[in-house]
Amino acid sequence: MMNKTIEIIKDHRSIRDYKSDQIDESIINEIIVAAQSMPNSINGQQTSIIVVQDVQTKAAIAEYAGGQTWIDEAPLFLLFVTDFYKTNLAAKKNGLTQQIHESVESTVVGAVDVGLNMGAAIIAAESLGLGIVPIGGIRNNPQGIIDLLNLPKMTFPVAGLAIGYPNSESRKKPRLPINTFRHDEKYQTENLEKEIDNYDLLMEDYYKAINRAQTINWSTSTSNTYKQVYFPKVYPVMNKQGFNNDK
Amino acid sequence: MMNKTIEIIKDHRSIRDYKSDQIDESIINEIIVAAQSMPNSINGQQTSIIVVQDVQTKAAIAEYAGGQTWIDEAPLFLLFVTDFYKTNLAAKKNGLTQQIHESVESTVVGAVDVGLNMGAAIIAAESLGLGIVPIGGIRNNPQGIIDLLNLPKMTFPVAGLAIGYPNSESRKKPRLPINTFRHDEKYQTENLEKEIDNYDLLMEDYYKAINRAQTINWSTSTSNTYKQVYFPKVYPVMNKQGFNNDK
Repeated sequence: MMNKTIEIIKDHRSIRDYKSDQIDESIINEIIVAAQSMPNSINGQQTSIIVVQDVQTKAAIAEYAGGQTWIDEAPLFLLFVTDFYKTNLAAKKNGLTQQIHESVESTVVGAVDVGLNMGAAIIAAESLGLGIVPIGGIRNNPQGIIDLLNLPKMTFPVAGLAIGYPNSESRKKPRLPINTFRHDEKYQTENLEKEIDNYDLLMEDYYKAINRAQTINWSTSTSNTYKQVYFPKVYPVMNKQGFNNDK
Repeated sequence: MMNKTIEIIKDHRSIRDYKSDQIDESIINEIIVAAQSMPNSINGQQTSIIVVQDVQTKAAIAEYAGGQTWIDEAPLFLLFVTDFYKTNLAAKKNGLTQQIHESVESTVVGAVDVGLNMGAAIIAAESLGLGIVPIGGIRNNPQGIIDLLNLPKMTFPVAGLAIGYPNSESRKKPRLPINTFRHDEKYQTENLEKEIDNYDLLMEDYYKAINRAQTINWSTSTSNTYKQVYFPKVYPVMNKQGFNNDK
């Protein structure tokens, strides 16, 4: 470990079992300020965060996300919103017509920036002894989230984050071998099949150890999830919100 | 400041002026491992990083990104790739047909995960005294990047990161007022125009202080960038790579 910050990052594991302890407002504020401090594309600052602590709102989100009860348990839920509503106010102020949301580039840049903001929120929270689990499942029912949280046109709910004090230990999940993630100078295809085989064996042991017997290994788990169009409501709801991804 | 990690995150500023000092391999490795340690959607691990140190390759990337000379100067460039090539190998191994890339959901999840990985790389690098600047400009010429770095089908170059030892001080850029970024319980539209006005005044002073006289303030800068479809090659090149964003 080279320093405490890197140690925290490398020690990440997702938490799905939380104590009922509330999180102090001063801590919530530190997490949000950390999230906002990250770099963003062209200083457009195209992210907003909805801070949800209301029990009923969290319950609705847990249901929309497909019954993720840890959202109920965690005292804090952050919704990360790609936000071209604020940049559109900037355009109106200057008598200009915003075009960025007329192309999939807006979706790419908005989602990258959400990831940067959420990454900082995760690391800040974990540095304070909190546990987290990202909630991509909010894209299962984006219209429900939009209606629930009053998201205006030209915004889209990209990802959520449940945060709380961990109630139990959690194992760190092994990653694919580093040489499938890191490619020097050019993309390297040669060893990928072999390394996937190696990782599948590793994950069989991991799943047995955490008693997830129904999941065989990485390639079965991933390919069975991705053999269908995942979260099919994303495209139509983004479209309704004013985003054109088809150019 | 609540702890050193949060202090590092809150102190972020982008660096566009680097010393020629090389970065030790052990440090590069720490940054990559930190990036890989972040959570990712469904454990699909749909990111790859190309580690570029070759001078000629960096020069080509600098040119494709629109003449960003700090990419030449920085000894290290990381390209963050959304990668459904590896998950497709997993599908082939199991005799299944991958569908995730047939919808804009793949672009959203891929870009969020890239942001999470890049966020950790940024914070890890800054914790080690390095400076960084994200390079969205690689999306200016994605086909050039794909050809240069041998990116296979079902991958897309989403963002870059130049890393090196800072050669000069850099001012921390003020952010929009926190109440435009943080919304409690529901999205709040009421104060946005007023706060944009406040921030515009703040940024006029900031731009004067850093001698960027041609940029008037935030709303003029942002709206003049976003009054056109930005990086128009993203959609056609993603399509050529096998991604269907139009459903």
